[in-house]
Amino acid sequence: MKFCSNCGHAVALRIPEGDTRPRHVCDNCHTIHYVNPRNVVGTVPVWQDKILLCRRAIEPRYGYWTLPAGFMEIGETTAEAGARETLEEAGARVTVGELFSIMNVPHVHQVHLFYLAQLNDLDIAAGEESLEVRLFDEEEIPWSQLAFPTVIHTLRFFFEDRDAGRVRDGSFRLHTMDIEKPLQPLGPDGHSLS
Amino acid sequence: MKFCSNCGHAVALRIPEGDTRPRHVCDNCHTIHYVNPRNVVGTVPVWQDKILLCRRAIEPRYGYWTLPAGFMEIGETTAEAGARETLEEAGARVTVGELFSIMNVPHVHQVHLFYLAQLNDLDIAAGEESLEVRLFDEEEIPWSQLAFPTVIHTLRFFFEDRDAGRVRDGSFRLHTMDIEKPLQPLGPDGHSLS
Repeated sequence: MKFCSNCGHAVALRIPEGDTRPRHVCDNCHTIHYVNPRNVVGTVPVWQDKILLCRRAIEPRYGYWTLPAGFMEIGETTAEAGARETLEEAGARVTVGELFSIMNVPHVHQVHLFYLAQLNDLDIAAGEESLEVRLFDEEEIPWSQLAFPTVIHTLRFFFEDRDAGRVRDGSFRLHTMDIEKPLQPLGPDGHSLS
Repeated sequence: MKFCSNCGHAVALRIPEGDTRPRHVCDNCHTIHYVNPRNVVGTVPVWQDKILLCRRAIEPRYGYWTLPAGFMEIGETTAEAGARETLEEAGARVTVGELFSIMNVPHVHQVHLFYLAQLNDLDIAAGEESLEVRLFDEEEIPWSQLAFPTVIHTLRFFFEDRDAGRVRDGSFRLHTMDIEKPLQPLGPDGHSLS
């Protein structure tokens, strides 16, 4: 930020009176400009035993597979954001269930949230931000070709819970995690090689 | 937003190519300015059977009681934000536990998150944004003087879970809710009068 979005004057970076952090402040109109983390919301879309993944047509991680997810927009709820992103990226209509994971990614100023979801039907199609979409059995998941750590961890938690019966009977618990490091290489079973 | 924060040029509000929503776009440097919801993170700070509340020294809801909470900052996790706000508003050091509630407030572009927390000691003191802080037994909670619906609902869920033993044995589940309406008047038991 170099200019005040309210009046167009150049801004300065300093700690405002009564505050504890540097902010972009305008000495012309006295606006203080705050910057806050953003929510990325997605779903774990399920059809019988299969999971829907999208192959990314955009950077970062072009060509890698991901759960459908994207930035939450003004005026919608987290669950609505997850359903919208699933429709936009995979052409898929889902019934959104419980919140399954919430993961902080502080180095990129994001919080990632994933909801369990049931595909309403098999009418799916790659959206503008996807190269392709398809359904995967657990043993087909392309662990080494997944786009983001939060997707990897969410899928691992999902299969652990599902295989233990905790998705079917609803006894799983919300998964929380803080991602502090860049992505580690993963083996074919989804576990870190390092 | 009237001016581009990157180059100072006047911005226009229109739907960018490939997008679905109006954004502030700069025709000089071609920056698209996105606005996203913000997270407000707080805690339910517990000492034995008592809950810590803060009386607000700032608008909105000056003079009303609240759980300590505030806007999540860049570079921190949600749990760190809750602990920091509890320290800033109540002078209280807490051990943060599990995420207890996540509530959408789309009409103010916010998501509210509250963590369970244990006070580390009784060294508490009103911060700059609080008139006073004190511990309340359940029957002392000033339901009609609580600042925000998300605080009211989180406290009600907390006492329901605690009284049923679900806080002690950890069997409570994350509470999710969407707040679509402005605050309704509440009776002394915390239930809506309307």
